Amino acid sequence: MARYDFASDNTAPAAPEAMEALVRANEAGFTPGYGSDPVTAAAADAVRALLETDAEVRFVASGTAANAICLAALARPFEAVLAHRHAHVLTDETGAPGLFGHGVGLTGLEGASGRIDPAGLEAVLAEPEVSHRQPPAALSLTQATEYGAVYPGEALAALCARAKSSGLGVHLDGARLANAAAAGFDVRTIGPMGVDLLVLGGAKSGMPPCEAIVIFDRALARRFDARLKQSGQLASKGRFLAAPFLGMLADGAWARRAAHANAMAARLAAACPFPLAHPVEANGVFVHMDEARLEALRTEGWFVYRFLDGSVRFMCSWATSAEAVDEIAAALRRIA
Amino acid sequence: MARYDFASDNTAPAAPEAMEALVRANEAGFTPGYGSDPVTAAAADAVRALLETDAEVRFVASGTAANAICLAALARPFEAVLAHRHAHVLTDETGAPGLFGHGVGLTGLEGASGRIDPAGLEAVLAEPEVSHRQPPAALSLTQATEYGAVYPGEALAALCARAKSSGLGVHLDGARLANAAAAGFDVRTIGPMGVDLLVLGGAKSGMPPCEAIVIFDRALARRFDARLKQSGQLASKGRFLAAPFLGMLADGAWARRAAHANAMAARLAAACPFPLAHPVEANGVFVHMDEARLEALRTEGWFVYRFLDGSVRFMCSWATSAEAVDEIAAALRRIA
Amino acid sequence: MARYDFASDNTAPAAPEAMEALVRANEAGFTPGYGSDPVTAAAADAVRALLETDAEVRFVASGTAANAICLAALARPFEAVLAHRHAHVLTDETGAPGLFGHGVGLTGLEGASGRIDPAGLEAVLAEPEVSHRQPPAALSLTQATEYGAVYPGEALAALCARAKSSGLGVHLDGARLANAAAAGFDVRTIGPMGVDLLVLGGAKSGMPPCEAIVIFDRALARRFDARLKQSGQLASKGRFLAAPFLGMLADGAWARRAAHANAMAARLAAACPFPLAHPVEANGVFVHMDEARLEALRTEGWFVYRFLDGSVRFMCSWATSAEAVDEIAAALRRIA
Amino acid sequence: MARYDFASDNTAPAAPEAMEALVRANEAGFTPGYGSDPVTAAAADAVRALLETDAEVRFVASGTAANAICLAALARPFEAVLAHRHAHVLTDETGAPGLFGHGVGLTGLEGASGRIDPAGLEAVLAEPEVSHRQPPAALSLTQATEYGAVYPGEALAALCARAKSSGLGVHLDGARLANAAAAGFDVRTIGPMGVDLLVLGGAKSGMPPCEAIVIFDRALARRFDARLKQSGQLASKGRFLAAPFLGMLADGAWARRAAHANAMAARLAAACPFPLAHPVEANGVFVHMDEARLEALRTEGWFVYRFLDGSVRFMCSWATSAEAVDEIAAALRRIA
Repeated sequence: MARYDFASDNTAPAAPEAMEALVRANEAGFTPGYGSDPVTAAAADAVRALLETDAEVRFVASGTAANAICLAALARPFEAVLAHRHAHVLTDETGAPGLFGHGVGLTGLEGASGRIDPAGLEAVLAEPEVSHRQPPAALSLTQATEYGAVYPGEALAALCARAKSSGLGVHLDGARLANAAAAGFDVRTIGPMGVDLLVLGGAKSGMPPCEAIVIFDRALARRFDARLKQSGQLASKGRFLAAPFLGMLADGAWARRAAHANAMAARLAAACPFPLAHPVEANGVFVHMDEARLEALRTEGWFVYRFLDGSVRFMCSWATSAEAVDEIAAALRRIA
Repeated sequence: MARYDFASDNTAPAAPEAMEALVRANEAGFTPGYGSDPVTAAAADAVRALLETDAEVRFVASGTAANAICLAALARPFEAVLAHRHAHVLTDETGAPGLFGHGVGLTGLEGASGRIDPAGLEAVLAEPEVSHRQPPAALSLTQATEYGAVYPGEALAALCARAKSSGLGVHLDGARLANAAAAGFDVRTIGPMGVDLLVLGGAKSGMPPCEAIVIFDRALARRFDARLKQSGQLASKGRFLAAPFLGMLADGAWARRAAHANAMAARLAAACPFPLAHPVEANGVFVHMDEARLEALRTEGWFVYRFLDGSVRFMCSWATSAEAVDEIAAALRRIA
Repeated sequence: MARYDFASDNTAPAAPEAMEALVRANEAGFTPGYGSDPVTAAAADAVRALLETDAEVRFVASGTAANAICLAALARPFEAVLAHRHAHVLTDETGAPGLFGHGVGLTGLEGASGRIDPAGLEAVLAEPEVSHRQPPAALSLTQATEYGAVYPGEALAALCARAKSSGLGVHLDGARLANAAAAGFDVRTIGPMGVDLLVLGGAKSGMPPCEAIVIFDRALARRFDARLKQSGQLASKGRFLAAPFLGMLADGAWARRAAHANAMAARLAAACPFPLAHPVEANGVFVHMDEARLEALRTEGWFVYRFLDGSVRFMCSWATSAEAVDEIAAALRRIA
Repeated sequence: MARYDFASDNTAPAAPEAMEALVRANEAGFTPGYGSDPVTAAAADAVRALLETDAEVRFVASGTAANAICLAALARPFEAVLAHRHAHVLTDETGAPGLFGHGVGLTGLEGASGRIDPAGLEAVLAEPEVSHRQPPAALSLTQATEYGAVYPGEALAALCARAKSSGLGVHLDGARLANAAAAGFDVRTIGPMGVDLLVLGGAKSGMPPCEAIVIFDRALARRFDARLKQSGQLASKGRFLAAPFLGMLADGAWARRAAHANAMAARLAAACPFPLAHPVEANGVFVHMDEARLEALRTEGWFVYRFLDGSVRFMCSWATSAEAVDEIAAALRRIA
């Protein structure tokens, strides 16, 4: 079988801190269900402490569902969500926002390396509203971006502020927020900048399948559990989705593991003989590579993806070893 | 805090066999995602072996989602699903079938102890079809039922056959199939009797949040992964949803643990001073109890639910101890 | 072919006032589309004058769509709408609220002759909210009711007030509001009593397919045209859906034609040898009649429906002639 | 008020033949509802005769709804519909396909003048299917196109055949099929070429709001009335949506009126001093015109739209007079 070390950040196992917390949560015996147990409460506190917020927190099993549920909470079916045209919600979730949002529109914006160009946002918001098009009701941001870039705090805040000034809600897809944080982004600014709903990634940060939804806009919290239950995302045994967060946040593993992933990406970028397609700011390395060479790499036993922009992606995670980086770098040099 | 031992079969922790398999799956290092890993393959084989079938198997995180996705696969929005009027899909899933099924109808049928009365099914199927009502397109069965009863195999097969003869698809909610099996129901008959889609329960059988969908009708398997992904139920780290099944099925823990839960229910039924509302055939005990006495029981520290039919429910699980049964039985005698 | 005079109030042709207005509207030459034409503006003014309100008014082609769109505007998918269990939205619209409302729940309430029993409403509103059930977010009322009864103004206002006091929105299905008005209900009280959205019936009042949506809650009016357009109910040639209202309201035909329909129902009730199942307060007559006699009536050439409550329904309309009433009364006497 | 003669082909009134049929249908007295009346039967026969087919025919009130309902019948929520990226279903229906299709995907294809480039279709169909993208299940064609072009019969048939060979369903948006027919397209080839569902335009052909859905694939006809009813498109007074077709088809007005519209477009194109952006093959004229000149034209009292491709559109209809063409042509020369 091929090696999947760099295929995605979700091919990795879960980190020890997450697994140990899971095992520990299981030893608590009988607990009430549907997120009303002590483990879930403690994990929610830990998320709030990380973000320095008093927001509501929920734990779910799927990032795709979490994103789609948030978008459905921010935009009605006859309205649209603005997002980078290569954002995960537009390109890799099989239309989940449309299912959960009942046909809600998705409008793609341009921007280098997955970062939305403010001028493009401005242009869309300046368009006159007509009844035969879905007008924008929400902005979806991604930090770190799909192309391994990290918005500077002020840039993200400026997009957020622009959206709010036109009355839009703001969703932040934080599947790789840990990597952005490790790259210097201050996650405590998310609430103050006006984000309404944050999906705080678990799986890509080294956890088993689990994600947190952080509800900064308290008005949106009303009946959110009913919303989750109807969407198949209110687990009866809720502690299993919360415990990994508790484990990863308790002693800083969340940040530390992400910093390692970023460092591995930097190591790979430094050793890679192919030209970089995007700046390496988080845990992904994107390079220009033709099809023959990609095929050659696969023949060497490494499975990686060609991405929507044509570049080839190498993802690092908490579990990526320096040895693996050196091995694939050697393979890359052989085929270059 | 109150004791939740009998509140539900999902207040229990996960069984050791499930947790150990989870931990073991995590040690496998990097694996491909979205259910294409070896653990998922082995778990699917184990499910097929249990059911003696070559059906397709998928692992998801939520029983509510699994049920709703199956109903959406069997009935279109302008059609209806027939189910017992107290079936979980009608009463306890916040309308999830309507969300995933885009407004699909749910028609409630009568029947004692959660078992559908064949005459009621016959009557609905005999109604002439009119365009201003949603005609039935699927039958949803539950084994064991919401009221702790178990269909005899021939009774279940007869309902199934009747539905098929009118062209309906058949869904089986097997959240507690293990308990039915422990009560004598032969799970190898499910495929041959004509069930199209089975939701094989994980959480209530002693696993962390995970369920299996068994696709007997292979035509329904086409693009099922896309269906799951759009529904937020195709986990990137799929092995975590499959491993518990592997652990529980490998050495018979699935059946053994359910047999224990059933035995605890029988023990409680035997010791309970309140009249039984339903036959105790699986892992639930339902009794007639007035509000004052229910309040008194809660004051004794035990949390249990009054159910839709007015009876009070006590659920047992793999984790229910004989000591706990004896303790609550003593409490019940005190308040009787 | 059988005679359909009493089968429904939509088997009748359109009244001359409606048709003449349609023809006249067509002579206006080129006009802007999508409801921005002068005929639509004048018709909206006429509706506002009738109801003594400054509400927003829209014209659509279908009562089923109008009702479903209104319910979707008042309740989210994980919430429920309360309505009489025999209300048209529950029993005769093929689940349209679920389609347009994305799985929104419908909770049936009891009450004689289609009027909701206040005690039943009270009981539902008193239930504690749990995340696994869809909590009520709106109340749907019908005036006149499905069984030809008319709520006294105070009774309707009391239901409305009770719903508002629990934060519910209120929808009024006014498919037969003209008949209620002709029976003495003051339509100018609808806005003040707190109705948020009224569907003002066109087809059953003697018009071609068209209905008006009256938006009393101005906050709901935002992007309502986009909502209608997405729902296939924002006609490009909007004047054709508005003109009939203009014609019927201009000189009082709306009220006059409904009064005639009511009078015909009274005439039939007086001559009918079968016991009445419901009070005859509007344009419908419901009688107890066994299957053999219903068959005999059909053999006499008259097509009528047996209704959900088991009674047989005879509907009168603007077009029902006294002669037809006398003819069917004679037939009824022959078979009695 | 500005003049709307060229703003759209739906700013025109209805043609006399349509209105007369409407008035005549109304004189038929009482008829059964929901499309089971003799007028609807006769109109369906007329449509079948026009297309030389024995397909099922339904009459609805809205082209947006008709298109969306057809797409929902051909593609499931986790699948996608392929269409020209400027097709009406993608750009001008407020996301109606997503609402009726529950999040069904829409994939835009390129092609000059609204005609789909076969190479683009080929490329999309050649893409490997992955579970995180919505795979194509249907092709939506438009004849005549949004840019006034007409597919040659063989070109349309070739696209259709290519789609069928990959197992896709085919929808044809025929809002302006009459204009395509007047330009030489043989509508009798639609069925044989493999179209499954055709929306045959009424409104843009000179009728009041009404459209026909032609169901060539009889398997799709099952429960289509229930589908329509749930979608708010099964009119109780169905004859009003069918009669205009009867009137327009009876003596050839449908074709004659469209030929006039096309002739007016040709006259305008010949007299227009601005360069044409698209070939003038049906009833639309698209020209290159800068913003200042468009403003000047509006100041002259003519309202027209700038289209998605940047060109300015002038639509002709059955009601466009040669005098109006000459007037606007004079205005265009003044501002050129």
